[in-house]
Amino acid sequence: MSANGTPSFFDLETAVEKVADTRFLANFHETWGIAGGTPNGGYLMAIAVRALAGTLEHPHPLTVTGHYMKRSSAGPVEILTERLGRSLTTSTGLARLIQEGVQRTHFTATFTDFDLATGKSVVHATPPDLPPPEECVEHPYVEGKSPKFQELIDMRFHPTHMGWARATPHGVGEMAGYIRFKDGLEPDLYSVLMFADAVPPAIFNVVGATGWVPTIELTTHLRRRPAPGWLRFRFTTRLLTRGFFEEDGEIWDSQDRLVADSRQIQKLMSPKARA
Amino acid sequence: MSANGTPSFFDLETAVEKVADTRFLANFHETWGIAGGTPNGGYLMAIAVRALAGTLEHPHPLTVTGHYMKRSSAGPVEILTERLGRSLTTSTGLARLIQEGVQRTHFTATFTDFDLATGKSVVHATPPDLPPPEECVEHPYVEGKSPKFQELIDMRFHPTHMGWARATPHGVGEMAGYIRFKDGLEPDLYSVLMFADAVPPAIFNVVGATGWVPTIELTTHLRRRPAPGWLRFRFTTRLLTRGFFEEDGEIWDSQDRLVADSRQIQKLMSPKARA
Repeated sequence: MSANGTPSFFDLETAVEKVADTRFLANFHETWGIAGGTPNGGYLMAIAVRALAGTLEHPHPLTVTGHYMKRSSAGPVEILTERLGRSLTTSTGLARLIQEGVQRTHFTATFTDFDLATGKSVVHATPPDLPPPEECVEHPYVEGKSPKFQELIDMRFHPTHMGWARATPHGVGEMAGYIRFKDGLEPDLYSVLMFADAVPPAIFNVVGATGWVPTIELTTHLRRRPAPGWLRFRFTTRLLTRGFFEEDGEIWDSQDRLVADSRQIQKLMSPKARA
Repeated sequence: MSANGTPSFFDLETAVEKVADTRFLANFHETWGIAGGTPNGGYLMAIAVRALAGTLEHPHPLTVTGHYMKRSSAGPVEILTERLGRSLTTSTGLARLIQEGVQRTHFTATFTDFDLATGKSVVHATPPDLPPPEECVEHPYVEGKSPKFQELIDMRFHPTHMGWARATPHGVGEMAGYIRFKDGLEPDLYSVLMFADAVPPAIFNVVGATGWVPTIELTTHLRRRPAPGWLRFRFTTRLLTRGFFEEDGEIWDSQDRLVADSRQIQKLMSPKARA
């Protein structure tokens, strides 16, 4: 919801309609298309998790895993969910996202109730060390070239992490900065799932901006609902082995609290395969 | 297989029998029981992945995610698998592990063919910095107290990482050392999946040995088949938030090559819940 109580564009573009106990309909909006029109993987995850929230007993996603098997495209999608099991404090289920009768992506998630999470906290990490937002570098939105959703999201990068965009990557697989919606919509658990996959890949600062690096599997752990204001992110890649690499992420809120950690495995396409 | 070509105890105790196209039977051996007899989560993953290897077209697990919903116990298990999708270089499927008619755990995996992985490698990490094995500390096996599988595995820990076992944790969530089978069986992809969950939790070096810390979700990325010899592991926990924490792992082989990276989310049980 936006500040005035009307659904925000993000709520509207990730909305699901429950048409049976475990069947939902939704629509992939072209806003979220990246390479070749395939919707962003975090956007697909947010939609799948809305369907799971309408299926499982606990209210908040704790860990969500997406498997990205086939390209999706803008347009209608059918979501079939299934309850897999529950305990006193968690419930687990899966969601299949189907277009034109073919399952494209697959999500498995465990939900909990963060309002009942009263366990111990010991955090041996800090938010990314960043200059103030006005000294960070905005990612330029280029009409007709950038994914449209980048026009809706304010991303500001650590000044030394933008070398990839000038073909001078600094050689370290890191990408840190600030992120929020441009229209003032405050972050929630669903937008955090999307933000966790919305930033240019950290590996671009190692190998350059090679183009699309498809996600094979992405897991995001959510830790709490974010406070209003800027989120700060840090994504790192250290381990590129024979074309496969991980990307680790952390997202922190304006009160210096961790709201999510993520890890995905992606494939660096060879020049031959891209040709 | 052991060096003389006969099946090793690990091969035998993770074996699955295919009884239909997507139905397998197996047996959880009591050797692998931890707290309350629940089999080790990495052991369950190795069995699930054997069933998936008998289901999917590609030969090698690349990323495997387990959701641990209910306790399993020693005894027979039925495994139902399903093919979810495939591309030229990967195939994805799921496996349900069922005991007494109830699904206890759920696995989702993407397989590939490592023999065809010819992409670029850039590794900005090194194996854990360890003294030689003979200067590391063996984890003492205590009859009737330690899980039986610890009698079969040679684990040697960095000398400064064993404080938890003497009730003097050093305060940093790390656990690094060497690991191999005691009987000379060389590691393979399946044993690496098990090793990735076989070491005492790194969080014990922060909060002490609190007892069982159940895994909610565990994802392991495999990178290559390991070379013979010692494996080296490094597990770290930095982010304990209201009872939930991640554990990140890396496993390196005797040729200094990364063979796996893992991340799980676990729950630190409150003293009340353990009583």
